[in-house]
Amino acid sequence: MEIYTSKQIMQAFRPELAAALIREGLIAYSAGQVQLPPAQHIKFDAIEADCVIKSGYMEGDKVFTVKVSSGFYQNPQQGLASNHGMLIVFSAHTGVPLALLLDKGWLTAQRTAVAGRLVAEVMAPEQVEAIGIVGTGLQAHLQLEALGEVLDCRQVWVWGRHEASLQAFCQHFAEQGFEVRPTMDAQQLAAACRYIVTCTPSAHPLLKAEWIAPGTHITAVGADRKGKQELSSALVALADVLVADCVAQSLEFGEFSHAFEAGLIRQEHIAELGNVLAGKLPGRLQSHDITIADLTGLAIQDVQIAKSILLAQQ
Amino acid sequence: MEIYTSKQIMQAFRPELAAALIREGLIAYSAGQVQLPPAQHIKFDAIEADCVIKSGYMEGDKVFTVKVSSGFYQNPQQGLASNHGMLIVFSAHTGVPLALLLDKGWLTAQRTAVAGRLVAEVMAPEQVEAIGIVGTGLQAHLQLEALGEVLDCRQVWVWGRHEASLQAFCQHFAEQGFEVRPTMDAQQLAAACRYIVTCTPSAHPLLKAEWIAPGTHITAVGADRKGKQELSSALVALADVLVADCVAQSLEFGEFSHAFEAGLIRQEHIAELGNVLAGKLPGRLQSHDITIADLTGLAIQDVQIAKSILLAQQ
Repeated sequence: MEIYTSKQIMQAFRPELAAALIREGLIAYSAGQVQLPPAQHIKFDAIEADCVIKSGYMEGDKVFTVKVSSGFYQNPQQGLASNHGMLIVFSAHTGVPLALLLDKGWLTAQRTAVAGRLVAEVMAPEQVEAIGIVGTGLQAHLQLEALGEVLDCRQVWVWGRHEASLQAFCQHFAEQGFEVRPTMDAQQLAAACRYIVTCTPSAHPLLKAEWIAPGTHITAVGADRKGKQELSSALVALADVLVADCVAQSLEFGEFSHAFEAGLIRQEHIAELGNVLAGKLPGRLQSHDITIADLTGLAIQDVQIAKSILLAQQ
Repeated sequence: MEIYTSKQIMQAFRPELAAALIREGLIAYSAGQVQLPPAQHIKFDAIEADCVIKSGYMEGDKVFTVKVSSGFYQNPQQGLASNHGMLIVFSAHTGVPLALLLDKGWLTAQRTAVAGRLVAEVMAPEQVEAIGIVGTGLQAHLQLEALGEVLDCRQVWVWGRHEASLQAFCQHFAEQGFEVRPTMDAQQLAAACRYIVTCTPSAHPLLKAEWIAPGTHITAVGADRKGKQELSSALVALADVLVADCVAQSLEFGEFSHAFEAGLIRQEHIAELGNVLAGKLPGRLQSHDITIADLTGLAIQDVQIAKSILLAQQ
């Protein structure tokens, strides 16, 4: 069994390869060719911590993967990272463990950004004069980097709550050739941008229906559990096209769940990303459509990004 | 993170320490102080293989554990073991992985044998003139070894389907001071033995109600999934005391499920092993009682046996 450190994983990461494999995985998932057992959750209530265990296998593949993802939110107080999770890749022919990827959650962050990029490939308006990034954390950085691979636009607005993190974000991307304007007013961002990605842990809507112009696309990646919400239910109800990486999850705890529970949308309104990537369903019908993609995360993405690291090393 | 090979694990194994910790874990489980998320199953239908992922955490403990247990039953044809599973021990204070135990299923086999030993401590008749072991495989060996730690009896009958494995079993234990008689007639074994352990993958009952004398105890460890059965439903219905490591599992797929589905026993008839070990419920009331323990296996045993290896190494 090979052991990969965080550093080795970052060096081996190839965005194009990861995107191709995750695309394949999402298509297989929507075609019913993936085994994803329900996630296991362990909670450590005394110290504000949890652990999630996910596993996945694409039928006929050479490998399967188990991911242990932990969040110990008091760790930074003692100088430790919150997430010390890992991915373990096993042979699907013999069960032998092939690789242990000690990524500390980095691959989970990357596979979410890669899904954001795949959405852009099938849902972006033809003309994007400015990209809006709602949030300034790691996922906000990764989403813009991933979009940079597939969208030509280099004009960006970024929204955040803190001056310092907004400045840091602007400076980081200025060095990569982006022209980034900071704002603490999400309406200003919405007015300027036709491609918006929300990537915050917000529990209350940050974007309202009346702010969004026709022809805008929004990708929401923050709502990964119950109690989180980045888009108002009215905005979700207003959209012409709704796409989710996993329809069942988006209705259970994702961005679409709030509008669904309020009776504003029906399950049939939501297309699954794998079917859009496969060309079976459209990601955008007309240029003035408002389109929304909700990414709650699937273990098949973990399987595929782990494979991309192993392949890149060979 | 420390990595333990199979050989290091076998050398570090201390039966007394494992028994004390597994006893503690089973008691905590029955007291509702253990988190055991539902197991994940991945199936590889094309090659007769499967993988089970279990995790467990005892409230307030320093560690939690994830176990990946694989069964690739065509592996031996290419000279490989069927099980290449592992246990991973994480800090419950920080989520940091502490140890990777590459036990290839050995600890699962051992923790099952340890549970058998714990059953003997609270359910064995006062006088056992002969022990009966039904089965000749690894688990049959481990069960008799574990019983040898707590029962004085050295007279043994062993039942099997193959002359060669019966001979090997007898010879192995003769070297350890047991006097073992082989038989291919389970009724003969039942007539001679007041303490019987069944440890086969049988799908049909091997022991019948009319063969079992008053005062006999039977521990059944083979039925670890639907479709397996070692004791007739009439025998289960006849017993005066029924104990299961996990009442819910025993009714779902364990040895008691068949009698339960036939309406011969009720859930209230079954005591949970942790409660018997804690002294809250009796394992045996009278000397002529027929008692049965059904062991289907709990992830808290994996947690505790992994801890015993780490402690023994310190």
